[in-house]
Amino acid sequence: VSGSIEAHRGESEPIGIHLSMPDGRRLPVDELAAARERVFRTEGRKALEYGGNQGFEGLRDWLAFDYRSRESAPAEAGCILLTSGASGGLSDLCHALLTPGGVVLTEQPTFSGSLRTLAACGAEVVGISIGRDGLDPEDLERDLAKLVRARKRVNVLYTVPNFNNPTAALVSLERRRRIAEICRAAGIVVVQDDAFADLSLGPEVPSSFWSLMEGRGVAILGTFSKTLAPGLRLGWVLSEEKLAKELVRRRMDLGVSPLTARAVTAFCESGGYRSHVRRMIPVYRRKRDVLLAALEAFRPRLGNWSVPEGGFSLWIELIPALDSARLQKAAQAEGVLVANGRPFFVDEPRSQGIRVCFSHASETELTEAARRLERALEAARLRRPDAI
Amino acid sequence: VSGSIEAHRGESEPIGIHLSMPDGRRLPVDELAAARERVFRTEGRKALEYGGNQGFEGLRDWLAFDYRSRESAPAEAGCILLTSGASGGLSDLCHALLTPGGVVLTEQPTFSGSLRTLAACGAEVVGISIGRDGLDPEDLERDLAKLVRARKRVNVLYTVPNFNNPTAALVSLERRRRIAEICRAAGIVVVQDDAFADLSLGPEVPSSFWSLMEGRGVAILGTFSKTLAPGLRLGWVLSEEKLAKELVRRRMDLGVSPLTARAVTAFCESGGYRSHVRRMIPVYRRKRDVLLAALEAFRPRLGNWSVPEGGFSLWIELIPALDSARLQKAAQAEGVLVANGRPFFVDEPRSQGIRVCFSHASETELTEAARRLERALEAARLRRPDAI
Repeated sequence: VSGSIEAHRGESEPIGIHLSMPDGRRLPVDELAAARERVFRTEGRKALEYGGNQGFEGLRDWLAFDYRSRESAPAEAGCILLTSGASGGLSDLCHALLTPGGVVLTEQPTFSGSLRTLAACGAEVVGISIGRDGLDPEDLERDLAKLVRARKRVNVLYTVPNFNNPTAALVSLERRRRIAEICRAAGIVVVQDDAFADLSLGPEVPSSFWSLMEGRGVAILGTFSKTLAPGLRLGWVLSEEKLAKELVRRRMDLGVSPLTARAVTAFCESGGYRSHVRRMIPVYRRKRDVLLAALEAFRPRLGNWSVPEGGFSLWIELIPALDSARLQKAAQAEGVLVANGRPFFVDEPRSQGIRVCFSHASETELTEAARRLERALEAARLRRPDAI
Repeated sequence: VSGSIEAHRGESEPIGIHLSMPDGRRLPVDELAAARERVFRTEGRKALEYGGNQGFEGLRDWLAFDYRSRESAPAEAGCILLTSGASGGLSDLCHALLTPGGVVLTEQPTFSGSLRTLAACGAEVVGISIGRDGLDPEDLERDLAKLVRARKRVNVLYTVPNFNNPTAALVSLERRRRIAEICRAAGIVVVQDDAFADLSLGPEVPSSFWSLMEGRGVAILGTFSKTLAPGLRLGWVLSEEKLAKELVRRRMDLGVSPLTARAVTAFCESGGYRSHVRRMIPVYRRKRDVLLAALEAFRPRLGNWSVPEGGFSLWIELIPALDSARLQKAAQAEGVLVANGRPFFVDEPRSQGIRVCFSHASETELTEAARRLERALEAARLRRPDAI
């Protein structure tokens, strides 16, 4: 998803809309600094000692309380493990849940970093293609039957029902219910990556698999990377206590920084987390609209998309004449960084796409980014075979 | 090594001398808070973004410069990976270096947490017993020959030549040279855990395996957990660039917190690290002497030890009449927490021991801890079989 910055035609700095990151100008720097300062003053010594493999209990308490306030299944601090972002949590989970030769099912497209993590755990990763409504239970059922016939053991379904990254698809309650049933019947653990759960730009988010599966055979991955700041490297896994204990037992790095965890706890307990997220939603909505308006002007020459109703990214399905790798390169030459869609797929995708993110850059930059992308279109067109 | 605190006879709080941790009253809380505050003010936004799997380059630069100033083999920022303490680094290294069915050689006794990490990586762990001078190259050669005859593939030697934890043994230059030769000839990677390298209480520390092996087939584990604070969760691996790249490639959690790394960099660059360590050496020396003086009074009824010349711990080889597990329990009942020596061994040890640490508790607490330990001796004596 990253890429070194080559020289481009414009005289200005390249604009990056390739990374799924919070608004760079509105990170809660001062609030987090104040929380940290408070922690240093009042509990500096404890915060600088070993914090344990499971992580600071105060933050796990806050998270559990927060889950209890909106989920129908109970959540306790003992069910939560603090991790190095959702990526660290996914890695921990996979190592604990995979049996030798086991299969992980995943939507495709899905977050490329997660596909990399799943593969690194030694899993056979099987992708199920999704449309604008996200994972279709019928596709899940069909692919699962195929795998069972091939005598494969499916351990995990990795799913992002709340604003898929990159497509922003939101899976309906009906589909979730059916997916939960299928997984429960097949003994598959549902790993719900919920990085964007708090970042809906409009619709209410349906019940999570935690509630739908009543906290059994399910794990939720959370993170402060999208809502607060990725540099905190602070996420968590919510799972049944037995699995949480197993994750703690397997953890060898003595856990996340108690200093960081305590500072974020102070920020959360003071109401800072909720008010920051509330403040950011209209900001992201506006930025999304600015980017969409700028792209609309040349949509027929670019591709197709659905309006993202949450998360940070817009998925552009390119017109057949455009090649995603070529477009990424041409865009870079024009001074805008976009993400080639290919790494978001397990298998060769049926159509080509790019991911652009409206979250990090400023409104002015987003408009200029679209202009530069338009200038890159000509160079990204596929030549006829005889012209290559 | 930890243990829940049961009720004890004294009315006061239990004193913990079981954990290898820096002085709890002299953590550089204010200096680190100031460095953090500086980072928030001047580079808050960068510090809160993703920092990359390898970790903040500024700190890797400082560490590489520091190594170059005292090692004869070159070290560059590209050779360093920031990790979640030395424990995180050891786990990363083992996963990268172990072949299926591979063997890791280690001294015994050695840090129990590391033995846990090695076992978790799926290695067959083979312990080589050491005396007060640390690993004997002849023992290494003999055990290695045995393993070769058994057609085992030895991948790694895990060694703590600078103040073994728990025994504080310091391995001589001559022994290191011979160990380096043996490992080079056998294609074994030397993993030197150097958590205590900067915490000599007297002797000069001989050249590391990094210098002796000229940076090839060797990795050094470093950490700020003992010199600054464990709560930072900040350590590193120094290795040849090819291995460092492999570690980065395998890393799935997007690296350590750039915020923490930048704050520690600011602290190091301002000279704060060196002056803090310089300030702490006489503090630890005095605390060691206080504990030794207090134990000396009942040494014949307790056991034997060598004076630790570095690190945080004193290894007490118990008299044959004492049982280490029983002593740990009796001590806890008297209000002092000590570490049972058994988990520091791979195999059943030839003699029983406990680890006590002079680093964390205050001088008053250390004297009182010894008094309580003395009171626990009677209850910890082995009964004759017919009396059980």
